[in-house]
Amino acid sequence: MTGPNEAANMGSSTAWPQDVGILAMDIYFPAQYVDQAELESHDGVSSGKYTIGLGQTRMGFCTDREDINSLCLTVVNRLLEKTGTDYSRIGRLEVGTETLVDKSKSVKSVLMKLFTDSGNTDLEGVDSTNACYGGTAALFNSVNWVESSAWDGRLALAVCGDIAVYAAGAARPSGGAGAVAMLIGPNAPLVLERGLRSSHMTHVYDFYKPDMSSEYPAVDAPLSIQCYLSSLDTCYTRYRSKAASKGDAKPVNLDSFNAVLFHTPYCKLVQKSLARLALNDFVSLEKETRQGIEHLKQFVDVELEKSYFDRDVEKAFMTHSMKQFETKTKPSLHCATNIGNMYTPSLYGGLISHLVVNSASVLAGQRVALFSYGSGLASTFFSIRISEDESKLSSLLSVVSDVQTRLESRAKLAPADFVSTLEVREKAVHASPYSPVGPVDTMFAGTWYLENIDDKHRRQYSRVPVPAVNGH
Amino acid sequence: MTGPNEAANMGSSTAWPQDVGILAMDIYFPAQYVDQAELESHDGVSSGKYTIGLGQTRMGFCTDREDINSLCLTVVNRLLEKTGTDYSRIGRLEVGTETLVDKSKSVKSVLMKLFTDSGNTDLEGVDSTNACYGGTAALFNSVNWVESSAWDGRLALAVCGDIAVYAAGAARPSGGAGAVAMLIGPNAPLVLERGLRSSHMTHVYDFYKPDMSSEYPAVDAPLSIQCYLSSLDTCYTRYRSKAASKGDAKPVNLDSFNAVLFHTPYCKLVQKSLARLALNDFVSLEKETRQGIEHLKQFVDVELEKSYFDRDVEKAFMTHSMKQFETKTKPSLHCATNIGNMYTPSLYGGLISHLVVNSASVLAGQRVALFSYGSGLASTFFSIRISEDESKLSSLLSVVSDVQTRLESRAKLAPADFVSTLEVREKAVHASPYSPVGPVDTMFAGTWYLENIDDKHRRQYSRVPVPAVNGH
Repeated sequence: MTGPNEAANMGSSTAWPQDVGILAMDIYFPAQYVDQAELESHDGVSSGKYTIGLGQTRMGFCTDREDINSLCLTVVNRLLEKTGTDYSRIGRLEVGTETLVDKSKSVKSVLMKLFTDSGNTDLEGVDSTNACYGGTAALFNSVNWVESSAWDGRLALAVCGDIAVYAAGAARPSGGAGAVAMLIGPNAPLVLERGLRSSHMTHVYDFYKPDMSSEYPAVDAPLSIQCYLSSLDTCYTRYRSKAASKGDAKPVNLDSFNAVLFHTPYCKLVQKSLARLALNDFVSLEKETRQGIEHLKQFVDVELEKSYFDRDVEKAFMTHSMKQFETKTKPSLHCATNIGNMYTPSLYGGLISHLVVNSASVLAGQRVALFSYGSGLASTFFSIRISEDESKLSSLLSVVSDVQTRLESRAKLAPADFVSTLEVREKAVHASPYSPVGPVDTMFAGTWYLENIDDKHRRQYSRVPVPAVNGH
Repeated sequence: MTGPNEAANMGSSTAWPQDVGILAMDIYFPAQYVDQAELESHDGVSSGKYTIGLGQTRMGFCTDREDINSLCLTVVNRLLEKTGTDYSRIGRLEVGTETLVDKSKSVKSVLMKLFTDSGNTDLEGVDSTNACYGGTAALFNSVNWVESSAWDGRLALAVCGDIAVYAAGAARPSGGAGAVAMLIGPNAPLVLERGLRSSHMTHVYDFYKPDMSSEYPAVDAPLSIQCYLSSLDTCYTRYRSKAASKGDAKPVNLDSFNAVLFHTPYCKLVQKSLARLALNDFVSLEKETRQGIEHLKQFVDVELEKSYFDRDVEKAFMTHSMKQFETKTKPSLHCATNIGNMYTPSLYGGLISHLVVNSASVLAGQRVALFSYGSGLASTFFSIRISEDESKLSSLLSVVSDVQTRLESRAKLAPADFVSTLEVREKAVHASPYSPVGPVDTMFAGTWYLENIDDKHRRQYSRVPVPAVNGH
């Protein structure tokens, strides 16, 4: 881990520290899943509807032993253990989530439990919320803090977590659950490119959670897909013009990136989204050049705004971008297809997948584009440079080296058990007093879990012990 | 308004812009209130319980025509109108609140309605939540953004708003409602002092909102007071040692500040808090010096941790600090005593009060201390320098010059009407579909209000017209 740069900013004006970004990151997901093919047959839908139509393989889910606090406790505790980072070295902590169990008290305040022994309570940052975008807000706020006069040389922690569950029906297979923690500071192996973030935020009711007593959202699915794709268009266009205004000689297009990662409601939408960027690249070409691309000739006059639900355009550009998808995006879907939509951690689970699936030699020096989307809506297109420094890269990768093992060591539960677990959650989520019934012995080592909710809604947590040696 | 400093940060390392802080700010509060003396007699409590015991004069409250979205729409719209700021000049927008009507969709996303005509949707920032601390998080994140490489020369908007209501009982008179918007940028009249922010954050259930279907909090009042005062001790101690480590020749004490402002659950607690800082100053003196202060001699061995509920200590230091309270703190309670606790905007309503009550010549060059507290808990002690530049100061003050007129032009409602209004709110707050019944014609010009909630929980808003001339 990079050492702190004590007192870099005290008093006088100075330059931003170098290479601010993600020093280390880890993901937590629950120890059980339901198989999407089995869920198809349980739900009586056509075979392939979830597995091919959505591109989903397995879906992680939580029993009533887990809530947003426990998910975040687990991922932060594990990340700091794995990296050997002392709690006193953290100077900022922010959580992005849309899985609220309280309208007022932040998840961040609960995470302060972990800092008790260190005596460190001087940490700015609270919780950030806008659907699946909260983790990106936490990341950006953390990076800004490191570059600001408030920075005291310590590290920031950006945390995001969610439990994504849907009422019985068509949306249910697009659930998931998990949390990601990121340690932020200078001299990072994953460096946020400066001056290139471009956002699009607007007021829309595509997906929201107005039923405060339920974990389930209200969803206008067609509107949400259109919002997602049009936000992608807008952010990408702005990113390209920011790059141009910075004096980049070559215009930005898909060739500018070694990898392109997306917030992933379900994997199929991401494949369509990469095709969408290819369409953007095509539209931005001179008409003459467009006419010269034989297999896309018929789309020479296509308009972005009119093509969100044009199947011919979608199909043609998915075929056109297939090779790019395979190399630049598909590796990043490994967690998403095996866990499902994690909401705020989805994009960062994508980044971890990219790190896990590719080798260090492939990753070194890569430029990675990321698209973050949260309904309501908030969206940003930004980019990261992966360091070529072997030692930085190897410490980054060592933290996530157990992800594949953990994914494989999960227990598969039958669809009926998945459904009954959600039924228990429906009653449990805001109950008081409440004693959770879910098993503890099947949880991963190091997992924090809900012990009890007392009659004043106060939540007590315990932790599955981590074996002294060879722990997860 | 200070002009944008376009492209100050593009590309390469550079220094932070000068004098980053609050360029302009405004407060919105509802157009009706209940008199606290009348409420005492309505509630059948002893005369003076609310007015003297809590230090509260009037309490603002909202009908079912207002929610967190409408409050923030109003204050942002008015601030930008009053300052003549074009929506295209805003590059970041964040809202701090604990009055949630949705678990996922941010208030910030609703505020994007106001930006529609400008075409500007490239604004980072979402919502920040931890009880009454969210506005401070929004302010700090905004300032950090201006100092970061992500800054593009535009201004930031930090917004905070809440509706503070309590179930019938002892806590009910400590409610209130309002919103504050702050325009953030360089060359500001209110400059945040660099490198001096000191925070204390920890996990506690003193005040929280676990009943997601209600607007009312769960409160452990004695615990909350102890948490507030001990957080003040911790933050102030850290602030002083940060100042010392920066090489300040003289140790920080109350004499270091021309004004000391506090988050204000109720005014009496603030008077006790200033006394608490005087106690901190006393405890930090050499024993010999302490013994030399005749009227405090008996407290020479007092310990901070053991004195939170020591009436003798409290009384002695309230008397000891009375003069400082009158000049440094009391002016800042003007909005708090007349509106009540606004939660996130409380501290910033205090800053506005300080600007409204004092003259420009008094304000010029002042150093102001601020203590922000949000249960759960998150707290920070920080400080602001008021510019001596007459023109900057006069444009800052002109925006809030109507506050006193607005406070006085509110309608006084009878306690029975206040109670029945809260009963309507109890049913209204998360209802769908719902048609508000509260009057619109009694609202201030320029107020946004809830028109309707449809059967999908989607909220529609309208605005009371602002007269072309001499509008509020």
